[in-house]
Amino acid sequence: MKKLVLFLFVILLCTHVSAEDGYRLWLRYNTIDNPALLQQYRQQITSISCPSDDARLIAAHQELQTGLSGLLGKKISLQTTVTNGTILLGLRSHLPFIRKLVGDTALARLGEEGFIIRTVKHEGKNVTLITANKEAGILYGAFHFLRLLQTQQSIQQLSITSVPKIKLRLLNHWDNLNRTVERGYAGGSIWDWQRLPGYIDQRYIDYARANASIGINGAAITNVNANAILLTEEWLQKVAALANAFRPYNIKIYLTARFSAPVEIGKLKTADPLNEEVRKWWKDKTDEIYKHIPDFGGFLVKANSEGQPGPQNYQRTHADGANMLADAVAPHGGIVMWRAFVYSNETPEDRFKQAYNDFKPLDGQFRKNVLVQVKNGPIDFQPREPFHPLFGAMPQTPLMMEYQLTQEYLGFATHLVYLAPLFKEVLDADTHAKNNSTVAQIVDGTTDGHTLTGMAGVSNIGSDINWTGHPFGQANWYTLGRLAWDNTLTSAQIANEWIRQTFTNKQAFVDTVQQLMLASREIQVNYMTPLGLHHIMGYSHHYGPAPWYNKAPRADWNPVYFHKADSIGIGFDRTAAGSNALAQYQPAVQQQFENMATCPETFLLWFHHVPWDYRVHSGKTLWETMCDKYYSGVDSVRWMQHRWEGMKNYIDAERFSQIKQLLAIQEQEAVWWRNACLLYFQTFSRKPIPAKYEKPDHTLSYYEGLEFPYAPH
Amino acid sequence: MKKLVLFLFVILLCTHVSAEDGYRLWLRYNTIDNPALLQQYRQQITSISCPSDDARLIAAHQELQTGLSGLLGKKISLQTTVTNGTILLGLRSHLPFIRKLVGDTALARLGEEGFIIRTVKHEGKNVTLITANKEAGILYGAFHFLRLLQTQQSIQQLSITSVPKIKLRLLNHWDNLNRTVERGYAGGSIWDWQRLPGYIDQRYIDYARANASIGINGAAITNVNANAILLTEEWLQKVAALANAFRPYNIKIYLTARFSAPVEIGKLKTADPLNEEVRKWWKDKTDEIYKHIPDFGGFLVKANSEGQPGPQNYQRTHADGANMLADAVAPHGGIVMWRAFVYSNETPEDRFKQAYNDFKPLDGQFRKNVLVQVKNGPIDFQPREPFHPLFGAMPQTPLMMEYQLTQEYLGFATHLVYLAPLFKEVLDADTHAKNNSTVAQIVDGTTDGHTLTGMAGVSNIGSDINWTGHPFGQANWYTLGRLAWDNTLTSAQIANEWIRQTFTNKQAFVDTVQQLMLASREIQVNYMTPLGLHHIMGYSHHYGPAPWYNKAPRADWNPVYFHKADSIGIGFDRTAAGSNALAQYQPAVQQQFENMATCPETFLLWFHHVPWDYRVHSGKTLWETMCDKYYSGVDSVRWMQHRWEGMKNYIDAERFSQIKQLLAIQEQEAVWWRNACLLYFQTFSRKPIPAKYEKPDHTLSYYEGLEFPYAPH
Repeated sequence: MKKLVLFLFVILLCTHVSAEDGYRLWLRYNTIDNPALLQQYRQQITSISCPSDDARLIAAHQELQTGLSGLLGKKISLQTTVTNGTILLGLRSHLPFIRKLVGDTALARLGEEGFIIRTVKHEGKNVTLITANKEAGILYGAFHFLRLLQTQQSIQQLSITSVPKIKLRLLNHWDNLNRTVERGYAGGSIWDWQRLPGYIDQRYIDYARANASIGINGAAITNVNANAILLTEEWLQKVAALANAFRPYNIKIYLTARFSAPVEIGKLKTADPLNEEVRKWWKDKTDEIYKHIPDFGGFLVKANSEGQPGPQNYQRTHADGANMLADAVAPHGGIVMWRAFVYSNETPEDRFKQAYNDFKPLDGQFRKNVLVQVKNGPIDFQPREPFHPLFGAMPQTPLMMEYQLTQEYLGFATHLVYLAPLFKEVLDADTHAKNNSTVAQIVDGTTDGHTLTGMAGVSNIGSDINWTGHPFGQANWYTLGRLAWDNTLTSAQIANEWIRQTFTNKQAFVDTVQQLMLASREIQVNYMTPLGLHHIMGYSHHYGPAPWYNKAPRADWNPVYFHKADSIGIGFDRTAAGSNALAQYQPAVQQQFENMATCPETFLLWFHHVPWDYRVHSGKTLWETMCDKYYSGVDSVRWMQHRWEGMKNYIDAERFSQIKQLLAIQEQEAVWWRNACLLYFQTFSRKPIPAKYEKPDHTLSYYEGLEFPYAPH
Repeated sequence: MKKLVLFLFVILLCTHVSAEDGYRLWLRYNTIDNPALLQQYRQQITSISCPSDDARLIAAHQELQTGLSGLLGKKISLQTTVTNGTILLGLRSHLPFIRKLVGDTALARLGEEGFIIRTVKHEGKNVTLITANKEAGILYGAFHFLRLLQTQQSIQQLSITSVPKIKLRLLNHWDNLNRTVERGYAGGSIWDWQRLPGYIDQRYIDYARANASIGINGAAITNVNANAILLTEEWLQKVAALANAFRPYNIKIYLTARFSAPVEIGKLKTADPLNEEVRKWWKDKTDEIYKHIPDFGGFLVKANSEGQPGPQNYQRTHADGANMLADAVAPHGGIVMWRAFVYSNETPEDRFKQAYNDFKPLDGQFRKNVLVQVKNGPIDFQPREPFHPLFGAMPQTPLMMEYQLTQEYLGFATHLVYLAPLFKEVLDADTHAKNNSTVAQIVDGTTDGHTLTGMAGVSNIGSDINWTGHPFGQANWYTLGRLAWDNTLTSAQIANEWIRQTFTNKQAFVDTVQQLMLASREIQVNYMTPLGLHHIMGYSHHYGPAPWYNKAPRADWNPVYFHKADSIGIGFDRTAAGSNALAQYQPAVQQQFENMATCPETFLLWFHHVPWDYRVHSGKTLWETMCDKYYSGVDSVRWMQHRWEGMKNYIDAERFSQIKQLLAIQEQEAVWWRNACLLYFQTFSRKPIPAKYEKPDHTLSYYEGLEFPYAPH
């Protein structure tokens, strides 16, 4: 007992000197603070054994050593002998007894990355076995085991089988070669190109560890607004150095391919995907890439969108473009992720409809190693969007989900918004394309029997010490990985385990913060874009509200294009009477949305131009409801502040104060959104803000006059 | 003993989990690893007492609590009672016994910032007293005391008096409002403007702590290539929030003033410094700044240099411009730092001479609260420059020293170069202006009796976790503070104490690394710019060698302008036969430099066009000597690598490996410099590289063809 006291005291001191700066993410491995449980774990875990020197197994047992030594507050070593309490890592090829214990079929079912964790008797000893069909599975199993301890679960009689639902689980970094990050709010890029390939920053390793711990197995490390220079020899050496650092953590690198690269760095006259020279150039370039990076994953392409070149420049289709690259990577086992986020400069069509119009006709024309990567919604990562109409509309093509972790439209790295409810809302949506055709089932291949499946998140990672700027931004990174591995996890489950690992297992804290996280996204929708409003933020930098903005060089970059407020009402009519975007959905979905009465209020202004006096389900008018939503959004942020204040004694002062400060900014910005939007929409509704509410403290023209020339963008 | 073992073991674990990422700089406060000394310190230090709640004293005792608790491995608390082993902080106004103990005269001599640390008996107790004339002094005393422990010195019978030699000890950050850093190689700016003023990053506090620990008392936080937006209300609020965070650490904020701000943000038609409206605009703007920041330090100005606007745009002098701003800040006690780094676009004059030509005639015309800030040398922070001829030439004007910590011309954040020897070389140079007129004495006011004195370092700090990119970059930041406080410290003393605090007190490590640091600058001169070569680096980004470059839009941005290699010889003739820049020095200096035989070889090509066959002191020809220097530079980097390899077991694996990797890049880049320069100069000398040396592994045209479009700049 005396020892324990001294021990805990010293731990305290150490923690004091090395502050909780957030760098360690959810892999903190602080010593278990429940003495009884600590005692129990210490008995159950005595050593690690691993009869292989495969790089991924080394990564696995090193992580177990670090993690368990931290969690148990005593050194847990790698041993060759098996004793009571050994954590045993191995494939059936390493240890015959595994084959006996776990049948071939069970192992085969694990595929490339699944794992089994089982409490077993081996040679009379109590052993925790982590096994898999392939090495990568054992790595994931090791991280899963550590998560059990970090979340203080019993490890007495384990019998866990886990297989990822989705094959490609990726981060997309919009990082530029000059180390800026497009839509990055957490500092600059973590890729220090200037010092690559010679210098491997510890951060690369820790990045890979964090990703592996949540099952992320790929990273497209550069901006989809791509730079051909990346594909030159000098840069491929740099990329290869990163690939080497990531490989032990089962993370493949993907590169964004600038479609015009054959012209820009290849000195060809064209980038026409049907031109033989062009096809050869890409084939040779791809071979060169694979020489540097034998396990290169493939290409991610943004083409014919927002100024990026693409096959349409040569009157070819997206399929022509994608297939050319697919043919180049196919011999090496690579894949192509071709983004569906396209909209034409020329066509004055509702932007909602353009991806569907371009891509649906191409279904069946893509090579087998092509995925079409579709954003969750039809416009662009708004606080709420209906699911993208392409989901369910291209049965012959694997559709990869693209989420945005970086909060371009959701308060940058300043607002606490837990994104799992947004992600789940989309996954749970029923496309009605077939039976069993929720978006989740489309994406994980269930509906159409695809085995090539993918989910990507546009990264919110930057050079800030805590990686994501906002400490709760880490939760969104975490969510992407966990959901891609298992899309049946609930938002609450993911929040719960993230909180326990990232902050503390103290129940009062876990309960409160989980509640706060789960509410946070709807709160933000309320103070930013309630009732189906969308795309009403500041021009170009996307910071703050600017529903009045109408000066952009193209119509559909203007907020006024999207909300269409006038003296009659507000909202974008996408029914047959309007742009008829609804026709892109299956009849069952269409029917629900096209009728103002059955359309969920959350999507009302997405699909209807609704009169200000229209009575919503509550019986209140649209205008009153809009006021209620905006005001309740702000009130809820204050509620979050209040709840957070009560968490002061549960966690470290550093992160407590950091989040407190950020919530205060969030409150200010929520008030700004509320006031600016209501004052502006009021010029159309000509109705008062109910007297019960606090009055806006500035005029509309004050808000209209605000400028942010140095907002990150 | 058992306890101690357990204790040390746990410390080990803690260290393991929180890696040595360099964030803690020289303020690591790890528990003393010498058990006997630890025991001794624990007896000598038992508590802290501080009878005041002044913010700087709170900062002081908080730092002592953190630092001593870490160093002694036991909690050291703040108490009101004095016992044996109390560290007592106080002014004479707090504690009458201090006045008795330390005479008024002795206290007054400490000025605003000096301190006394003394072991005394107080009410029969053994007490360590830290006192001063003003609160700031006690803060510096507290950090000094912690340094004694960190460097494992005796604290038995302390009797220390320390007073800074220089009044303004500043960092200059070349940080832009978009969070890029001009000539920054350690990531982006640490100033997170987007989240200011609401969010105070812990980094701001730790930045202030680090600065205070080495006596830095001011920061110009933005680029001298200035942006007028900084002076708008919205941004002043952000700056004020930083100032509030820095204030407890006695750090004042200075702003870079864009000379044309009255036109750009003030809507005036002119920025003429003699125009009354302009003068009023600056006065009002200054009053506004002081409303936000009552202890605002003043302005730093780059005017009429490299495209920046200035008084010469209106046919006024630098004095006119500086005095206008000086008049605006004077009522508030502010100062103006006016940079002498000017060169005209129009005049085809040797750039060496231009600052002197512009500024010397203005001596005596500046207000009392103006300092002219002069770079250490006449060109631009080259690996070696002769001292700037303005030093000693403007007796009536306080000349502030500007050093560059960021290694713009010294290998970015990749090369290990300890800058103290460079700084000291300049400080020790005798200007011969009077008796007692070394550069150090000019700058610290001794020579001409100035009390307003200053020294600035262009910061090498960025968002990298370890602040400076290269772990040894921290030493250069450290050096600036320590040298500004006490310009009599030697390079070896500073290196020694920095190593002990930053890495370990183990003697073998300290000795080796100190030797390596002291040699590092000359090694770099040898592989980059031996014998007085200068400004032969890559165009614009300044990365790598490009002595052949001759395409810049103005002559003196071209390397060929500076080395003037031809078939006869190499070097810039600055004698009376050439540009006659030497005439700007005092006769004694002139005489030494103008004669090729007496000119130190280190400066030979700075002042002479020397024939390839010229015999230097060794009897070897210039060409042979140049080859020897370049080759010995590379060899010495290999020696550094070898020595570092031997340090493996003395420190943490993380920093060991980081530095090892960086040294490997440094070796590659040293080879690149050597080969590129010798192959190029060989086209003029037409002499062989001695056969004993390894042959360049690429051709000159290979080196000439290298391009670095994304090198930081």
